[in-house]
Amino acid sequence: MTLNETHDAGLQSWVVSANTGKSDFPIQNLPFAVFRRKSNSEDFRGGVAIGDQVLDMAAVRNAKILSSEVQLQVEAAAQSQLNTLMGMTHTHWSALRLALSRALRAGAAEEAALKGCLVPQADVEYAVPAQIGDYTDFYTSVHHATNVGKLFRPTNPLMENYKWVPIGYHGRASSIRVSGVDFKRPNGQIKAPDVNPVLKPCNRLDYELEMGIYAGSANAWGNAIGMDDAENHIFGLCLLNDWSARDVQAWEYQPLGPFLSKNFATSISPWIVTLEALVPYRTAFTRPTDDPQPLSYLSSEANSQHGALDVQLTVAIQTEKMRAEGKQAEQITQTSYRHAYWTMAQLVAHHTVNGCDLQPGDLLGTGTLSGPTIDQAGALLEITEGGKTPLSLSNGESRTFLLDGDAIVFTGWCEKPGAARIGFGEVRATVLPAHKA
Amino acid sequence: MTLNETHDAGLQSWVVSANTGKSDFPIQNLPFAVFRRKSNSEDFRGGVAIGDQVLDMAAVRNAKILSSEVQLQVEAAAQSQLNTLMGMTHTHWSALRLALSRALRAGAAEEAALKGCLVPQADVEYAVPAQIGDYTDFYTSVHHATNVGKLFRPTNPLMENYKWVPIGYHGRASSIRVSGVDFKRPNGQIKAPDVNPVLKPCNRLDYELEMGIYAGSANAWGNAIGMDDAENHIFGLCLLNDWSARDVQAWEYQPLGPFLSKNFATSISPWIVTLEALVPYRTAFTRPTDDPQPLSYLSSEANSQHGALDVQLTVAIQTEKMRAEGKQAEQITQTSYRHAYWTMAQLVAHHTVNGCDLQPGDLLGTGTLSGPTIDQAGALLEITEGGKTPLSLSNGESRTFLLDGDAIVFTGWCEKPGAARIGFGEVRATVLPAHKA
Repeated sequence: MTLNETHDAGLQSWVVSANTGKSDFPIQNLPFAVFRRKSNSEDFRGGVAIGDQVLDMAAVRNAKILSSEVQLQVEAAAQSQLNTLMGMTHTHWSALRLALSRALRAGAAEEAALKGCLVPQADVEYAVPAQIGDYTDFYTSVHHATNVGKLFRPTNPLMENYKWVPIGYHGRASSIRVSGVDFKRPNGQIKAPDVNPVLKPCNRLDYELEMGIYAGSANAWGNAIGMDDAENHIFGLCLLNDWSARDVQAWEYQPLGPFLSKNFATSISPWIVTLEALVPYRTAFTRPTDDPQPLSYLSSEANSQHGALDVQLTVAIQTEKMRAEGKQAEQITQTSYRHAYWTMAQLVAHHTVNGCDLQPGDLLGTGTLSGPTIDQAGALLEITEGGKTPLSLSNGESRTFLLDGDAIVFTGWCEKPGAARIGFGEVRATVLPAHKA
Repeated sequence: MTLNETHDAGLQSWVVSANTGKSDFPIQNLPFAVFRRKSNSEDFRGGVAIGDQVLDMAAVRNAKILSSEVQLQVEAAAQSQLNTLMGMTHTHWSALRLALSRALRAGAAEEAALKGCLVPQADVEYAVPAQIGDYTDFYTSVHHATNVGKLFRPTNPLMENYKWVPIGYHGRASSIRVSGVDFKRPNGQIKAPDVNPVLKPCNRLDYELEMGIYAGSANAWGNAIGMDDAENHIFGLCLLNDWSARDVQAWEYQPLGPFLSKNFATSISPWIVTLEALVPYRTAFTRPTDDPQPLSYLSSEANSQHGALDVQLTVAIQTEKMRAEGKQAEQITQTSYRHAYWTMAQLVAHHTVNGCDLQPGDLLGTGTLSGPTIDQAGALLEITEGGKTPLSLSNGESRTFLLDGDAIVFTGWCEKPGAARIGFGEVRATVLPAHKA
């Protein structure tokens, strides 16, 4: 995947809201989602973001506006779940991106026809954009692993396997929800020292700042995907909040890993930014020189040169009090995906080295993307040192863990001189009171 | 769920092979699978086992043989995936069972019409019978947990949480295969003491004797299923082999649990025995009196009285040498599901107590069902004490872990005086050589 005309920072769209330099969705981005107009009974269908609009791919398909050379892709992108599009090859995705880029450029002959296919983003609601067959969550930030390890296992914070194995586990697909869907604080077994466990609402509810990686075309069951082919099996990325019940987790997680502490809810941003859109933001993948180098099935020259990805990420909180006072969410963390210890390609190569098959639409979470310093930490568990040091907010409130009514908002974007700024939008959800246990 | 006319041990079918007293599939069983005739391009569709035949539910639907009162169920049972049938209620399932039981009885008026809907089991192949959205694996045998714990954690074999929490974790849905599909020995990172890990074929490949529980109707996301309702959300059971790469597992499993050591393959038997068919084999659920009693969300009077299930289970091995010599598989274990420390209802209640939603077709593995003695152990890891004590086979071979060419066969059945013997068939798969790493 290389830079091409679709990445040209000088490109302007006839959708003028895309040209502000501040929009998440300039013509160089062109992410996919599944949407419908709010408050009516329309079917969900695929769309592409451009400025403050959604290009309705079902309308584009129906009006036969784009070249017949990309007809299969247009039909796939118009569906209510994008698995068919994801199951195509990079060549297919790239051809569709080029066709969309050309048709949305200022002066394009398609302007008049495509105008009728735009729906304001303000008027739409989104769905989970694919049937997610399997959801895997990794643990790719060595900073997060070390910070958390200190709390759960003071004598053994970073395990011996961490720098060799891209640690991951399977998560729950059924409880993944799109941004804006609020969720109840979970009940669970919680154990205080020296007394029996009890069932009660989680008292240490946390977020985890992650990115989600959608698998593209499948590998045959039994066949590994090598590093040089790994990125061909990635469709694109979103923002992901791996909500976590820390008190439930501490009691349940040995020996088989987190379960009910995670599977009550996972929130994702609606827009999927394709790997091709992210080409300008690829960056070198390096490790401290005294760390072990990855085994050969996790190494490639290309991965060292540009295996990492520089996505700026923020976490903000909007408490109920802030909302009542009309205050926006307050930022509490800013970091970048580039600090991850394992790259996307390494996750794909590792996941399949035993023959496990990835299917189009499968979702891989990166794990909490904490950076090297505490103001880059991606979870309250780290920021508050396990609840010992409350986080102070500017309106006088403080938090150790989340309270009912707290909304958490993640944003993500890429920017650098000479390239167009592109964004991921946001993933937002609010904690609702627990169901009576 | 109670005993009714369908359980009457005296019932005979006009399909005479069902009446031998030795068939897994007498008229009192009536399990579901998805099948087609071998070696042709027929579509898969649902079927019901009766004796040595499959009743083709698509043919039954097309010929409109059963009462229109069960038409919805017949249509659902005819599909190529049984999720729609599973998403119905126990009342629906029970009505279909009654209609099938009456129509298959000796003397039934439907005999002539239904005869044309039979396909010999010898002529068919099976598919995974549902779209399995999420697969969860539990750890319900305290004997297994203790045996394995001694090997992985000699100082702390049974963790403090075991007797309080039905420990479970999410597994891989995409790599579940039906009986008869062979699989490659997985490659993985393996670490010997005092040297760096290397990628190589698993050298400690094992099986795990489990049952699989198919979820029926869904719970709303955010709402727990209580103990008294839990079994209404279970469609039926199968046999399940949770293939395990012990050397990969030992190196990767901390702190997030098993991942690549399990997700390369899981094998299931094709036939799903419904919970209603199993009513005669329900049995009391008891715990040692000095063990903690389950928390209230995991307790009910009904669960204590008949929450457990007495399914006889066997493991047999057929090595390549045995096959060459025309020998049948040699039994190495016999045990019963009744030894489990947590019941099916407890698994459902626990899984959903945090609001996690179960969907029709979701699969819950029980975990390895080792009984109290070593000849009842459900994995080689236990039988061979972690590979230290080889298992001797009657033909002079021995095994610590599985070799290429070994086939493992599980069978399961229920029998007791006064009730019809019913069986699960088998789950069988053979280890193929590893893909070149």
